[in-house]
Amino acid sequence: MSLVVVGSVAYDGVETPHGRVDRMLGGAATYISLSASFFTKTRLVGIVGDDFASEDTALLAGHDIDLEGLERVPGKTFFWAGKYSDDMNDRETLVTDLNVFAGFDPKLPESYRSQPYLLLGNIQPALQRSVLQQMSRPRLAGGDTMNYWIKDFREELLATIRDWDFLLINDGEARMLSGESNMRKAANAILDMGPHTLVIKRGEYGAMLFRRDSFFIVPGYLLETVFDPTGAGDCFAGGFVGYLAGQGFDLEAGHIGRGDLSRAVIYGSVMGSFCCERFGVERFRTLTRAEIDARFEEFRKFTSF
Amino acid sequence: MSLVVVGSVAYDGVETPHGRVDRMLGGAATYISLSASFFTKTRLVGIVGDDFASEDTALLAGHDIDLEGLERVPGKTFFWAGKYSDDMNDRETLVTDLNVFAGFDPKLPESYRSQPYLLLGNIQPALQRSVLQQMSRPRLAGGDTMNYWIKDFREELLATIRDWDFLLINDGEARMLSGESNMRKAANAILDMGPHTLVIKRGEYGAMLFRRDSFFIVPGYLLETVFDPTGAGDCFAGGFVGYLAGQGFDLEAGHIGRGDLSRAVIYGSVMGSFCCERFGVERFRTLTRAEIDARFEEFRKFTSF
Repeated sequence: MSLVVVGSVAYDGVETPHGRVDRMLGGAATYISLSASFFTKTRLVGIVGDDFASEDTALLAGHDIDLEGLERVPGKTFFWAGKYSDDMNDRETLVTDLNVFAGFDPKLPESYRSQPYLLLGNIQPALQRSVLQQMSRPRLAGGDTMNYWIKDFREELLATIRDWDFLLINDGEARMLSGESNMRKAANAILDMGPHTLVIKRGEYGAMLFRRDSFFIVPGYLLETVFDPTGAGDCFAGGFVGYLAGQGFDLEAGHIGRGDLSRAVIYGSVMGSFCCERFGVERFRTLTRAEIDARFEEFRKFTSF
Repeated sequence: MSLVVVGSVAYDGVETPHGRVDRMLGGAATYISLSASFFTKTRLVGIVGDDFASEDTALLAGHDIDLEGLERVPGKTFFWAGKYSDDMNDRETLVTDLNVFAGFDPKLPESYRSQPYLLLGNIQPALQRSVLQQMSRPRLAGGDTMNYWIKDFREELLATIRDWDFLLINDGEARMLSGESNMRKAANAILDMGPHTLVIKRGEYGAMLFRRDSFFIVPGYLLETVFDPTGAGDCFAGGFVGYLAGQGFDLEAGHIGRGDLSRAVIYGSVMGSFCCERFGVERFRTLTRAEIDARFEEFRKFTSF
């Protein structure tokens, strides 16, 4: 009963108003896996170069993340660098060196193919599709995408998400994908594209979950200091799917209720909020399940009436 | 046990992507009073010219709003015209003809002075202060302000809100007033300025309530169509204070709990959402308390987990 996570493993250089780190562990699959690992057994599919540090492997393995699917090839690991605006609502990409990630063609280890849960990080839709085809029959499969694929690879993306149970995107991407500026209309249009569950991330404003018959909205957690928002959306995704996987939920079989999905959105929000408290993945070095559950209860306290 | 509302009564010209109305009833005190009238007896203090239409007086009176405090003088009623952007998150002011509103110097009728609740719409801080001084000893007094007063009349504004129980502003104004971009820090800084209760309106993203010992956050209601957002913030204020007044709550005496305030924020959100469903005050012509309570329950449904 484990979750397969596919996506980028990278080194990041990040500058925020709180400081700057020239090189640290990053990448969507890294953030998703670390976040999900607090809820369920996680198996990572990605690619790194021969510069990938043993302490970074150790961090992942220390969270019981299976690394059989982490391919190591000659060359350099994907490197990304960016700088955030003063209010951290915008960021400028300074460097994108794909390096070995340019040749990423995910091949799932045999032991991964029968796992029940799949979360596809933001990579080329054709690769996401190839991964799902390698799985025998996951109970719950879906993923993330981004404006680039929506704009320039629309048909490929539509053919990919048609087979997904869930799609996780941000509000701007939802508007772009649906062509609707109103969120309720945008959600309905996207639910017509295949996924029966849509999660829309709104950054500091929280998240929304839409299904045909219901929706759920949660505001964002109010951090005193947002240190570094890099990876927050991926940590949200990891918490959301990790929680559902950890509970053994099965959307298709109707074994999941509105309450389960809502709680999954809260766990996603909790993990995204912790992510922002330190640079990169630092917060996950010390984070405990007790802290996660305490913040879950905080959400209940500041939203219930 | 009634609520005194002070502010502008105006005619508005509004253009949104859904259409255009050249002249319709508007003004902060109009929206606040209509909204509050669904919860409590409301008394309006404002000024209009001799062009103020009898059907508009009839609409207000039809909601049992006391108009003894609505001064009528020779000249024209305040006229404002604006045009909204396509996503309705921005608006451009096309006309501001203060007319008789330029001479507004609110004098409370004797019967208003002993009322327990006071809500001051966005007018010059010195005038807001003069109104509070005319009241004998309200249980709950506060109001709204805007960027213009925060920026150019800061000292006058600080001297005014020092005596308020609550302040209702939007997130941009909270940042400007506090000098803090982080909302939690901004809220703490503003609570140091006098009000023990702060409500921050976030437009489509909902609202937050802060007190020293707690906070509450609610996401915005997802309307299928936002027809005209004019007055939504004022309707929020009217619903928030109207509900508290209608229940006879008394913040100072400790007769009000976190739950009461949270429910008041929900009623504010409900009234703001109804306001956007039609141009101007149109929606309030047919709105019923049953519809308001049904939407309150919808809020509970889409936010609870």
